[in-house]
Amino acid sequence: MPGEFDIIQRYFAPLAGPDGLALKDDASVSAVPSGYDLVVTKDVLNEGVHFRAEDPIDLVAFKAIAVSVSDCCSKGATPKHYWVGLSLPSEPTNQWLQNFCHGLDVAQQEFGCCLSGGDTTKTLGPLAISVTVAGFVPTGQMIKRSGAKVRDSVYVTGELGNAALGLEALLAGVDCPSDLQKAYQAPVPPCAFGQQLHGIASASADISDGLGADARHIADASGVLIELFQPKLPIGTNARAIINESPDLASKIWSGGDDYQILFTASESAEPEIQQIAQENKVLVTKIGVIKQGTGVQLLDHNQEIVQVTSGGYEHF
Amino acid sequence: MPGEFDIIQRYFAPLAGPDGLALKDDASVSAVPSGYDLVVTKDVLNEGVHFRAEDPIDLVAFKAIAVSVSDCCSKGATPKHYWVGLSLPSEPTNQWLQNFCHGLDVAQQEFGCCLSGGDTTKTLGPLAISVTVAGFVPTGQMIKRSGAKVRDSVYVTGELGNAALGLEALLAGVDCPSDLQKAYQAPVPPCAFGQQLHGIASASADISDGLGADARHIADASGVLIELFQPKLPIGTNARAIINESPDLASKIWSGGDDYQILFTASESAEPEIQQIAQENKVLVTKIGVIKQGTGVQLLDHNQEIVQVTSGGYEHF
Repeated sequence: MPGEFDIIQRYFAPLAGPDGLALKDDASVSAVPSGYDLVVTKDVLNEGVHFRAEDPIDLVAFKAIAVSVSDCCSKGATPKHYWVGLSLPSEPTNQWLQNFCHGLDVAQQEFGCCLSGGDTTKTLGPLAISVTVAGFVPTGQMIKRSGAKVRDSVYVTGELGNAALGLEALLAGVDCPSDLQKAYQAPVPPCAFGQQLHGIASASADISDGLGADARHIADASGVLIELFQPKLPIGTNARAIINESPDLASKIWSGGDDYQILFTASESAEPEIQQIAQENKVLVTKIGVIKQGTGVQLLDHNQEIVQVTSGGYEHF
Repeated sequence: MPGEFDIIQRYFAPLAGPDGLALKDDASVSAVPSGYDLVVTKDVLNEGVHFRAEDPIDLVAFKAIAVSVSDCCSKGATPKHYWVGLSLPSEPTNQWLQNFCHGLDVAQQEFGCCLSGGDTTKTLGPLAISVTVAGFVPTGQMIKRSGAKVRDSVYVTGELGNAALGLEALLAGVDCPSDLQKAYQAPVPPCAFGQQLHGIASASADISDGLGADARHIADASGVLIELFQPKLPIGTNARAIINESPDLASKIWSGGDDYQILFTASESAEPEIQQIAQENKVLVTKIGVIKQGTGVQLLDHNQEIVQVTSGGYEHF
């Protein structure tokens, strides 16, 4: 069984970028490109809450990075560094460490960032993984939640509800379409696309709490009303089949968390540029609504009637 | 009982600096001063491992910030931002939140940094706190472990073993001198002093694993032998009294973790400048050894004989 420092040197050090000093120092040190701001996001994933004990650990590791990268790139920033705080309930086996680090490796290749440091500790509870991601965005250009303007269009990347419906299927023990299982276990936020949105999007957020809740975050921060059109919401074939069979699961499109797609607003004139960047990055981008004067979020059906929605999204307490 | 977003807005947002965007966005955004490098440290504190369930929560919060600040300032950097990932075993009471945030507030006033973001989550295990600290150091001047040179002097700030002996007393349920209890529960690393060491110290590390282990980190990284003089080790009055009574506890000076003092090396010619900075910052700095050709760490007694030391320091596994 390897000791704490052995674990770091054998398994984690090979993932470290030059700024991580081979994980042999007390800190990482990074040059910051001139003309850029530093964007930092932090997430904690707890076993039994954010992932299931039976989820493959390489996918859990991948997801731990993906969820923080998602926040970073939804702000128009390019992720460069990440730090992992690991709370381990017991001495990990070599196999477990290998699988965990494989997941980190796949994530850093997918998202273009490097392990720069962290902390490996023991816990009396279940496994917990905390991840901090740092990225850079041209000075003053981070896309905030607060920039949406009346008459802006509202866009979303990818498809909605896949992760939440995938989790439902896994929890129910029924056959889970592989794209939905992947959306829950190993979401791939549209990182390259998001990085190019600075200077184009007026406001944005990643969808982690659910479309309704994250739209409300933007509406509240911007002091506007967000009107979303139900028939426009991008729903995949497998998700639609599940909803047709269990109509009560339709609410997952609105309130299911864990999508890690980008919800953003932009002026009408930006549409050609947005679609061009989407095409270049092979990302589906759908216009799903419009910004109006007012407050809150409204969902309209095909008759322009307000749809009553209940759950606001995921909250821990 | 407040919800997740209420908790953030009521208790944490007042601690946020301008870069934290009132904790209303998905990320923090910080201007990076030109001519500086970014130094990042990360630590996780788990209940039952790093602190006791009965430790006052404001002191636990303070310590969670202090231990990462300690890494940052031992590298010659000035801490500016911190992010807190909180895993809560149950819905916290208002009183608990107030006390926890009071501890953060005292820490950020002591160390001059601001809350810039984080994550508030639920866990099925005991309380866990992960902290990331970011600071800045003039470009290329971060003090690494690897810079110690033959003939450099070895210095340490403050007193050794106080925290470990304080914890021993608390665990044994015997009367604990207040300075030792404070050293364990609410350590105050010499932050202002450490920030001024860049360009002066050749190598440094904070003492978190124990003097012996952290000296070895510097010796290994620098490829040198560190010779330490036992009679020079700074031991406080109360620590000395405990050791006189229980001589087997003397090893805590060498192997007890949690000191959060700075162990550093510098050329002989730097001594006047070091003592001047120490005086300005009211920090005790003691010359405890010298760098020689060779490898490892040796402790010498008053006859220049090698002292046999056993435990190497704290490891989680």
